[in-house]
Amino acid sequence: MAQLAETLSGKAISLVEARQEDATLILTLKNPPANALSIAMMEALLGALERARGNDAVRAIIITHEGKVFCAGHDLKEMTAHRADEDRGREFFARTMGLCSKLMQTIVRHPKPVIAAVGGVATAAGCQLVASCDLAVAGTGARFATPGVNIGLFCSTPMVALSRNVSRKQAMEMLLTGEMIDAETARAFGLVNRVVAPDEVNQTAMKFAQTIASKSPLTLKIGKEAFYEQAEMGLGEAYEYTARVMVENMLARDAEEGIGAFLEKRKPEWKGE
Amino acid sequence: MAQLAETLSGKAISLVEARQEDATLILTLKNPPANALSIAMMEALLGALERARGNDAVRAIIITHEGKVFCAGHDLKEMTAHRADEDRGREFFARTMGLCSKLMQTIVRHPKPVIAAVGGVATAAGCQLVASCDLAVAGTGARFATPGVNIGLFCSTPMVALSRNVSRKQAMEMLLTGEMIDAETARAFGLVNRVVAPDEVNQTAMKFAQTIASKSPLTLKIGKEAFYEQAEMGLGEAYEYTARVMVENMLARDAEEGIGAFLEKRKPEWKGE
Amino acid sequence: MAQLAETLSGKAISLVEARQEDATLILTLKNPPANALSIAMMEALLGALERARGNDAVRAIIITHEGKVFCAGHDLKEMTAHRADEDRGREFFARTMGLCSKLMQTIVRHPKPVIAAVGGVATAAGCQLVASCDLAVAGTGARFATPGVNIGLFCSTPMVALSRNVSRKQAMEMLLTGEMIDAETARAFGLVNRVVAPDEVNQTAMKFAQTIASKSPLTLKIGKEAFYEQAEMGLGEAYEYTARVMVENMLARDAEEGIGAFLEKRKPEWKGE
Repeated sequence: MAQLAETLSGKAISLVEARQEDATLILTLKNPPANALSIAMMEALLGALERARGNDAVRAIIITHEGKVFCAGHDLKEMTAHRADEDRGREFFARTMGLCSKLMQTIVRHPKPVIAAVGGVATAAGCQLVASCDLAVAGTGARFATPGVNIGLFCSTPMVALSRNVSRKQAMEMLLTGEMIDAETARAFGLVNRVVAPDEVNQTAMKFAQTIASKSPLTLKIGKEAFYEQAEMGLGEAYEYTARVMVENMLARDAEEGIGAFLEKRKPEWKGE
Repeated sequence: MAQLAETLSGKAISLVEARQEDATLILTLKNPPANALSIAMMEALLGALERARGNDAVRAIIITHEGKVFCAGHDLKEMTAHRADEDRGREFFARTMGLCSKLMQTIVRHPKPVIAAVGGVATAAGCQLVASCDLAVAGTGARFATPGVNIGLFCSTPMVALSRNVSRKQAMEMLLTGEMIDAETARAFGLVNRVVAPDEVNQTAMKFAQTIASKSPLTLKIGKEAFYEQAEMGLGEAYEYTARVMVENMLARDAEEGIGAFLEKRKPEWKGE
Repeated sequence: MAQLAETLSGKAISLVEARQEDATLILTLKNPPANALSIAMMEALLGALERARGNDAVRAIIITHEGKVFCAGHDLKEMTAHRADEDRGREFFARTMGLCSKLMQTIVRHPKPVIAAVGGVATAAGCQLVASCDLAVAGTGARFATPGVNIGLFCSTPMVALSRNVSRKQAMEMLLTGEMIDAETARAFGLVNRVVAPDEVNQTAMKFAQTIASKSPLTLKIGKEAFYEQAEMGLGEAYEYTARVMVENMLARDAEEGIGAFLEKRKPEWKGE
């Protein structure tokens, strides 16, 4: 098992390119044309995200892609091959779905904001990947779908992320028809934040990343975690919880520095503590 | 009680017309001008939905209407008449609200997708009926309201469905003012999926139904059920649940057929198992 | 402590002006330029809301402002001053956040609908105040932000209200970048109901208030309470709960009067019972 993981991690290097630009980590899915979320691709992404977790040099993360497709979802050939397993693939399918769910939750729980830069098609678990990021930028040519219903496999894990971005009837239309929506529709639905010209996608994502990188990383970590936590609470519980978060945040040095700088009309210097 | 149900079911035949067109069951509310959700109308709708549940020939369901009004909500005359009961109507009101809640949840929990085709006004429980369907098509002349507040009876059950389609301030505006919104506003709010010319409402709903009917009914059943289940869960629980759903879905014959057909570039043949 | 409260309440009189116009209570934040939610301001608002709770003459409440800023959030100078406390301000910060959370929940739980009339900038807890109201009207020049991230203090309590109005990616963009959105964007996001010319903000809010004031106050109370309660429930529980609410509402005299008036085509006369 350890050996397998090593091999995968070795293979992974070529599937996801990790490049640092100033304080931003750019992760590029690099297995066109489909950039499928095979086990190896998911391990590679997870590995890169885990390495970034404690890396102070990384303040924001962009997930982008090589080729025309952002990500077309799971690797159907890989999954089909495992139908020949003794258990008809059950264990492998469970491993795939478990790993996928772990990857998506790792993005949501990651201390650094994650931005999807989508220049092309994002379908099934690829659409889920976009929905799981904190922010998303799409090119005018980008398109989104949860087309599992077309191949007899409902996009049930993708819809967890999708339905937390998009309203019910809109999500249901995507899930029941399997049809593509264009970038502007995705923006109107709340799946992406910005639609820009194709050659401005990475640049717009980078602008988001730079804006974010100028903030206190501790504050971002506190806030991002609290955002998704309180989203699952009732109103009273959410206020009790976030009021405690605010008090701790106030007592951190970065808040003292930030508020001090604001009152003194100077630029803050974050210590990340 | 059995006799009463029979009578109602007999009466029901004229209140809701059930017509099959290819794989689509078309249920037409046929008690203009209001198409009120009287006890008899709700029993009729419930009966038709229950009969469709195990009917393999039905792949999608459309709810539409005769006359200018889609549905104006409960039958206020029927309810008012029961104020003369010994309990001032309490039991009858409870029966009405219980039946209404059951009807709406039957749509949500139904294994087949349900599409509202709204050519006219949908108010109170009529608006709730639209909100409870998986998809909705509106004509340009359709209008929507939850006007119970105008008659001293807040649309409290309708808002359960409405507020799961429409954001808070928008739902609150409809509920507190009781005013109508037009079809385009309803679309922007997320209450309907499409706004089309009045004479294209049924045709557009039918196109949705045909698209849906071309999918595996087992996959639709799995996916629709999982959609509404996961919507009420926290993120971690939702992923655990849907990952299990995906594994079972993968092991079903329709997924094997669908994925196989996709990889072999041929049309799938669903067995519904 | 009692003395302090009295002093604050004395001071409060000048911070929030309470003016009755017909059945509408207009609360004006009157501490420009920032209209900061200092302890005194929050106590003043809370006091005014508490006094309105049982006041039958008040049917709707408007929260508006003097000056160009609706409300810029907490009083950073006040908070910073308490860093000199023995506990580095912990108790004071907890008191501030606790009071703020209480204020926002008091609006949500208030028996009378509350409408924000926003002619200018609403940031941090000021944006939260808008999000916490049942309805909101913005002038074309109004702008909204949760900019705490800029000063090292993530808008964690504001996001409880914001994220219950606005979809995830949109809320996250506001929270992570701290940037302003304009009134039209706020409307598209669902944070406000209407955008009107600057000189029509109060008039439009008043029109909402008058519409609401023409309804049965009992019905509004029942419905508003039920709305926020059911929003936190699963579908089955929400229907069980609201069905019970509807039955009680039907048995109230105002529903009998309202439905009777409707059937007899006359204007209802509300008794509020």
